[in-house]
Amino acid sequence: MVLVDEANAKVSFVGGSFAHHQNPVQAVIERRSSRAELEALKEGEAGFSEVTFLAPISAPVRNIMAVGKNYVEHASEFDKSGFNATTAAAAVPAFPQLFTKATTSLAGPTDDIVFDPEHTSSVDYEGEIGFVIGAECRNVAAADAMSKVFGYVALNDVTARDLQKNHAQWHLGKSLDSFCPLGPWIATADEASPATLEVKTWINGELRQTGRMTDLIFDVPTLIATLSKAMTLLPGDIIATGTPVGVGVGFTPPKFLKNGDLVRIAVSGLGELNNRVRTA
Amino acid sequence: MVLVDEANAKVSFVGGSFAHHQNPVQAVIERRSSRAELEALKEGEAGFSEVTFLAPISAPVRNIMAVGKNYVEHASEFDKSGFNATTAAAAVPAFPQLFTKATTSLAGPTDDIVFDPEHTSSVDYEGEIGFVIGAECRNVAAADAMSKVFGYVALNDVTARDLQKNHAQWHLGKSLDSFCPLGPWIATADEASPATLEVKTWINGELRQTGRMTDLIFDVPTLIATLSKAMTLLPGDIIATGTPVGVGVGFTPPKFLKNGDLVRIAVSGLGELNNRVRTA
Repeated sequence: MVLVDEANAKVSFVGGSFAHHQNPVQAVIERRSSRAELEALKEGEAGFSEVTFLAPISAPVRNIMAVGKNYVEHASEFDKSGFNATTAAAAVPAFPQLFTKATTSLAGPTDDIVFDPEHTSSVDYEGEIGFVIGAECRNVAAADAMSKVFGYVALNDVTARDLQKNHAQWHLGKSLDSFCPLGPWIATADEASPATLEVKTWINGELRQTGRMTDLIFDVPTLIATLSKAMTLLPGDIIATGTPVGVGVGFTPPKFLKNGDLVRIAVSGLGELNNRVRTA
Repeated sequence: MVLVDEANAKVSFVGGSFAHHQNPVQAVIERRSSRAELEALKEGEAGFSEVTFLAPISAPVRNIMAVGKNYVEHASEFDKSGFNATTAAAAVPAFPQLFTKATTSLAGPTDDIVFDPEHTSSVDYEGEIGFVIGAECRNVAAADAMSKVFGYVALNDVTARDLQKNHAQWHLGKSLDSFCPLGPWIATADEASPATLEVKTWINGELRQTGRMTDLIFDVPTLIATLSKAMTLLPGDIIATGTPVGVGVGFTPPKFLKNGDLVRIAVSGLGELNNRVRTA
């Protein structure tokens, strides 16, 4: 349970105040809601004094899209780890490496990250900043791309490194149930900007990752242009922009997640995720 | 337009008879409809003499899952092609290589396959047999897996080889709009079986691919067990099982699709796809 005040609730699209299947945020995104509507949402929630934050999008329109190796130092640490099954002429990719996480991997900001140690013995965190598409679009030029962003959200691209490597394509190792903590809220594009967003990750209080969105190899306009040249993007699409240096597999020996670990990911202005690791 | 008789309509779940957004087949799958219900569907469509088949699932619950290199000879031809950006100690993978195709790549059985030749110059066909999950499930043992199959469906895992290679992860090159022709119908599991299903692909009438589901490296029970060990599978999930030898990139020089080509894919008992290639 997380205590929030009214000011906090304003931008939170508090999942806990709606039935899970109603997916009210999707409706908000599709309407490209005005500030007045958002304020009305706030009014409706003024009575809350205690809520449990769920993922702000509980029933995504489709798989979460994600980018691998989108920070220079992380690209290097991952290639050196021995867990990358994709060939790379250069450590820094010339094209964004795009994969998806299953919708069922979504978890709330305080849910447990759960895995069976007999299934995977190398679970790793990846603190990331995601963005949410606000309008159906295709063939968007990079110069027009920012107008398609509804907002920004913190997420953890939790990864089973052994499965990621063994299956070569990354979908399975990135898609275990609970492997995509998201939230606690979406900050709309008028309140957040890649110019200032910064992600930090702590494991049991120890700072492991710091990354600024300005350091992305492929920035938000480039990602929207690249994706929308191939496919129609949909309102509600979630796109994870990649993780900075400092993941567990980058250490020697690797520091994989173990039962009881607390993963804290904070993004400036986007709140924080606090997920406990639980083996089952 | 395709002429069908009542006997054909019976198993077709004719998409054309419903508004696109209603997604009636999803409801049928979730109810695990009885034969009696399917017969009632047939009664309701007895008046049709001419329909256009759409994809039998028009609004999938999430991305289509797919398996790479799941026939021995195709694994070999693909590795030799120079378009595979994943490392492989052996040509035949030890673990299924799982990726997804975007929901927006779905196309109907007679829709055009469309691409911009300035975006990709190496578009290829992959005739495949897919299966559809009938029940939410997790941690399914291979021995119990067949009970989770709702039915089988023909599909074309159309691929932009240059994008597949350049982006290393296959999601983007597999996800262009129109790159997943599906249908024309789903044959329920009581009417079709991996023991007998065979896929054939013709380009402009020339037979290029023949594959039997009994030759899969990772069979349907293995795929369900592998996937469900990681993630909860959902009713309506579509899983493409891989393509046999004979794709365009396997020829020297490669035979990529060009404007005006007709791709015909037929699966025994599952009807056929007839998609014209159009550059735009």
